[in-house]
Amino acid sequence: MSAALPTLQVVPRPGIVELGPGHPDPGLLPEGLVGEAAAAVLADDGPAALGYGAAAGPGPLRAWIAAWAGAREGRAIAPEEVLITGGASGALAHVCTALTSPGAVALCASPAYHLAARTLRDHALRVQGVPSDEDGVLPGALREALDDLRRRAERAAFLYCVPSFSNPTGRTTSAARRAELLAEAERHELLVVEDDVYRELAYDGARPPALPRPPGEEPGVLRLGSFAKLLAPGLRVGWLVGPRPQVERLAAAGWLDSGGGTSHFAATVVLRLATGGAVDAHLATLQDAYAARRDALAAALREALPPGSQVPVPAGGFFLWATLPRGADAERLLPRAERGGVGYLPGRRFALPGAPVDEGALRLAFSWHSADVLREGARRLGRALAEHLDEEG
Amino acid sequence: MSAALPTLQVVPRPGIVELGPGHPDPGLLPEGLVGEAAAAVLADDGPAALGYGAAAGPGPLRAWIAAWAGAREGRAIAPEEVLITGGASGALAHVCTALTSPGAVALCASPAYHLAARTLRDHALRVQGVPSDEDGVLPGALREALDDLRRRAERAAFLYCVPSFSNPTGRTTSAARRAELLAEAERHELLVVEDDVYRELAYDGARPPALPRPPGEEPGVLRLGSFAKLLAPGLRVGWLVGPRPQVERLAAAGWLDSGGGTSHFAATVVLRLATGGAVDAHLATLQDAYAARRDALAAALREALPPGSQVPVPAGGFFLWATLPRGADAERLLPRAERGGVGYLPGRRFALPGAPVDEGALRLAFSWHSADVLREGARRLGRALAEHLDEEG
Repeated sequence: MSAALPTLQVVPRPGIVELGPGHPDPGLLPEGLVGEAAAAVLADDGPAALGYGAAAGPGPLRAWIAAWAGAREGRAIAPEEVLITGGASGALAHVCTALTSPGAVALCASPAYHLAARTLRDHALRVQGVPSDEDGVLPGALREALDDLRRRAERAAFLYCVPSFSNPTGRTTSAARRAELLAEAERHELLVVEDDVYRELAYDGARPPALPRPPGEEPGVLRLGSFAKLLAPGLRVGWLVGPRPQVERLAAAGWLDSGGGTSHFAATVVLRLATGGAVDAHLATLQDAYAARRDALAAALREALPPGSQVPVPAGGFFLWATLPRGADAERLLPRAERGGVGYLPGRRFALPGAPVDEGALRLAFSWHSADVLREGARRLGRALAEHLDEEG
Repeated sequence: MSAALPTLQVVPRPGIVELGPGHPDPGLLPEGLVGEAAAAVLADDGPAALGYGAAAGPGPLRAWIAAWAGAREGRAIAPEEVLITGGASGALAHVCTALTSPGAVALCASPAYHLAARTLRDHALRVQGVPSDEDGVLPGALREALDDLRRRAERAAFLYCVPSFSNPTGRTTSAARRAELLAEAERHELLVVEDDVYRELAYDGARPPALPRPPGEEPGVLRLGSFAKLLAPGLRVGWLVGPRPQVERLAAAGWLDSGGGTSHFAATVVLRLATGGAVDAHLATLQDAYAARRDALAAALREALPPGSQVPVPAGGFFLWATLPRGADAERLLPRAERGGVGYLPGRRFALPGAPVDEGALRLAFSWHSADVLREGARRLGRALAEHLDEEG
């Protein structure tokens, strides 16, 4: 007999404060809202929610996202420039299949979201890291990588980056840096895939600037958004905004035509929540909750970690990217930290070939636990680190 | 301004009896059942339905499918041999990405489900048709294709087929033919992808035999099932049963790990329906409804079509594959038929390179309309055909 297989991706380990997974607190998932919306959709319009959906997603949801995202970016977005996807993860996989050739180089900001990098490799892309600093991808490094490819008569499939409240670093790229990067991309006719799932989770006022869209049509910027962080991951409803020809190419895929879109029923539920105002209302709740957790974790880390540590406070998103004092190694510290009751992801796991590795860095998610549990996690990390430094030193 | 984009894939044209799309009757979609299950799941276990799901799908649904399919096939299936997918369409796309190499040849029973063939091409596979007769793929033709590839030092990525109540022909491959085909596949270490979404829609008693699974582990048979036909397409919940190493390889994809499965919330709703007995109960309703429609369409066609036509009665599924008398061309007839108020898909659209084309064949779906509307569709087809034959003759 096989043991029972899990329902969820991560089952918290007893006694461990889990700062590794970038998951929302189960207590913040809007089960009441989703239940009401599902009931309303099925009662009012059941067959339209349960039949084969339009390949590109329900038209009214494409229109809602176009208007919502357009208002935020201060530009007109047409519904035809929006594709409904199976979250940002499904979108990235689909972009790889439909718009890249196997064996091509995919440039990727490093440190990089490790599962995105794995997705690129799954599609037979050769992932090459582009170094970044506190302001995101380094334009000089991007230029160098592109020039180097050109000399070898190769072209990059795209640049993948998370410029707003980044996974894993929590950092946000400034408007000036975005403009530089886009100019570089345009010069080399490079497609940019902007993973933008944290943008709305802004805790200090204004949202980040949008990566400006070049005026031309192709290649341009494909921006991936998701309701996974705004409502619930399990819905598997996200979107992609991009130039119309590319959206059309993506929507013409056989599997989307055959299956009637990626997640039609869930998308109709999301539409009901969106038009009823629940997306915006829930977002305000999340911003308050996550801001308090971020502040609690950052303050507790500053108390718990020794001098020489760095604890930058991200302005949004799920992650705090801390750096341990010289001599500490986040990968080697991990087993001791877990024995002491706290988990995290060492920074090394996000480093890509072609970019430097910071052995003292670690990614700490403040999305899952309450402020009190986060504080306890910080104390445990501090104790484990003190032992680790004693031993290493 | 753009016109409103549609919510559903196919919007019936006013005045047309639509025998083209293989869609369920909106009136047969179980919106009440889905609504109750969604409410129950969210009330009892909301966070588990809305969080990041296990990459391979909710464990209890994998276990339910393993037990349900195993009982039908008379063999033990382990939950680890089951992967939850985004319908059979999503499963096919994922199999192409994870288990094939671009540029490889994909063998495909011809006539073939046209959107599956498009999905294979989307993944840069070279689609080659294998001729079939009333009993499905011809073993001799399969052997010839495989030998030919071997001579060119190539291997086929897989054989794709729909051996039970086939799309587009409605035909079912006998147990004897299945054994012959499997022996051929084993001899050449050929993976078989069995699109099996119509198996349960059996109207004349016993379900078709399963394509016997070879005793070895890899390559073997990957069987694609779906709740699209058993419950509702919009849920986008299907499954794949296959050798454990291949299921593990498929489940290890970055996008599934990153996104927490393909359609987690919908899968938890399906699980509730399955364990509560609703899947089996609804299936009995569907069998009665579709059997009556099939009989109505077949009887009306026999009356409406001239001598020399063939109207085989499929034992299950959604489709009747009719053949017009000599001299008639289903593709050229179509515009006249649509002017006369009936739509269908000409058989030529399902023919693949490497296999013969039957210009008189057409696929007629009896799934969407009531018996009365189907009868009217048959009469209209008969009238259009009479005019067409007059003109051609």
